[in-house]
Amino acid sequence: MSTVEQRLEEAGYTLPAVSKPLAAYVPTMRDGDTIYTSGQLPVVDGELAATGKVGETVSVEDAQGYARTCVLNGLAAIKAEIGDLDKIAQITKVVGFVSSAADFDEQHLVVNGASEFLGEIFGEKGTHARSAVGVAMLPMNAPVEVEMIVKVEN
Amino acid sequence: MSTVEQRLEEAGYTLPAVSKPLAAYVPTMRDGDTIYTSGQLPVVDGELAATGKVGETVSVEDAQGYARTCVLNGLAAIKAEIGDLDKIAQITKVVGFVSSAADFDEQHLVVNGASEFLGEIFGEKGTHARSAVGVAMLPMNAPVEVEMIVKVEN
Amino acid sequence: MSTVEQRLEEAGYTLPAVSKPLAAYVPTMRDGDTIYTSGQLPVVDGELAATGKVGETVSVEDAQGYARTCVLNGLAAIKAEIGDLDKIAQITKVVGFVSSAADFDEQHLVVNGASEFLGEIFGEKGTHARSAVGVAMLPMNAPVEVEMIVKVEN
Repeated sequence: MSTVEQRLEEAGYTLPAVSKPLAAYVPTMRDGDTIYTSGQLPVVDGELAATGKVGETVSVEDAQGYARTCVLNGLAAIKAEIGDLDKIAQITKVVGFVSSAADFDEQHLVVNGASEFLGEIFGEKGTHARSAVGVAMLPMNAPVEVEMIVKVEN
Repeated sequence: MSTVEQRLEEAGYTLPAVSKPLAAYVPTMRDGDTIYTSGQLPVVDGELAATGKVGETVSVEDAQGYARTCVLNGLAAIKAEIGDLDKIAQITKVVGFVSSAADFDEQHLVVNGASEFLGEIFGEKGTHARSAVGVAMLPMNAPVEVEMIVKVEN
Repeated sequence: MSTVEQRLEEAGYTLPAVSKPLAAYVPTMRDGDTIYTSGQLPVVDGELAATGKVGETVSVEDAQGYARTCVLNGLAAIKAEIGDLDKIAQITKVVGFVSSAADFDEQHLVVNGASEFLGEIFGEKGTHARSAVGVAMLPMNAPVEVEMIVKVEN
């Protein structure tokens, strides 16, 4: 078992199966040593873990957990591409889209759920540039969507 | 005529003229073998093909067509940069921003209009990582905006 | 003093101190010669210069200034990474997220504040591909957020 997966397991997480793409796109695309993930939703066992807008029916704390689930799904997709998460040299960039109530302005706290999880699992290699934005709606009324750009070892 | 343009023609599409940039930016910027397009709107002959939010005054089916028009405009911009669309090695990443009614949650279906079109025209080279998000508003009240990252042959 | 910083000074701007990251992420991440900035808010001396949605409590003209402040913060972060802004070979990509009133559709004018500023300071090296979108809300009710991808000299 790879070190990264061991750390995931110790933190109480298991890499999920990769969701089948819903359309004419793929979960990850590689360009040289750079991997782009598709925007990941908090899908667990093929179903969204929750729906709704943060600040309305979804709490910040719950949304942080869903952001973590998005990351977990992204890592599963990356593993399917490169075989071993220990080959990740750096998490380069994270964008977190938060489905937001009209007056909800704590998107950064929600996306911290993704950022802190990456730091916990990857250490220095998990630090990244990041944007957090609040959007009107996400596919299937998901509360959060996370995409990543990752650098892998040559 | 290039193979890609032939396929476009057979599918009933013509590459449009490249819209003049509206400001101090350009339709595409190249970094090595990677080309970033600006966010493309469904402009036809210099005018938006439609305005309004999807789920309100714009139907999903129509919005899929507008997403396709965005891609077509992006391809025209890329052709202006590299001369021949056959030099595209891979469509790497697509982000689709869908101007959404407050309760509209089928952004993925709208952006399928872009993804499936790329698959139809480029085959394997057209598969890509993708994010679909619902936004509050887009420039000039456009219903959809699509940006692409594309890898070209060295 | 570098040429770019001289131009900034002549235009009346001073590079700010780099804001401490608010969480488990960093202001910039480098992948080879490419630097990704985190989404920058219009923070001045550690506080947001303004809050609110454009088209509601924030005017287009003011928002253009805030977009410029976002860019200035991004440049400060890049300087902290590479030491000298003259090493920037090209501003490759800019994404501007504009917190928008329900009927506000001039996001492109707001983000022109960022694009034109980059052109003014960097000349040809400042032209870039760009997306401008209107979002529901931004962290801490900021009116605008700008992220950049920048190419640096090898």
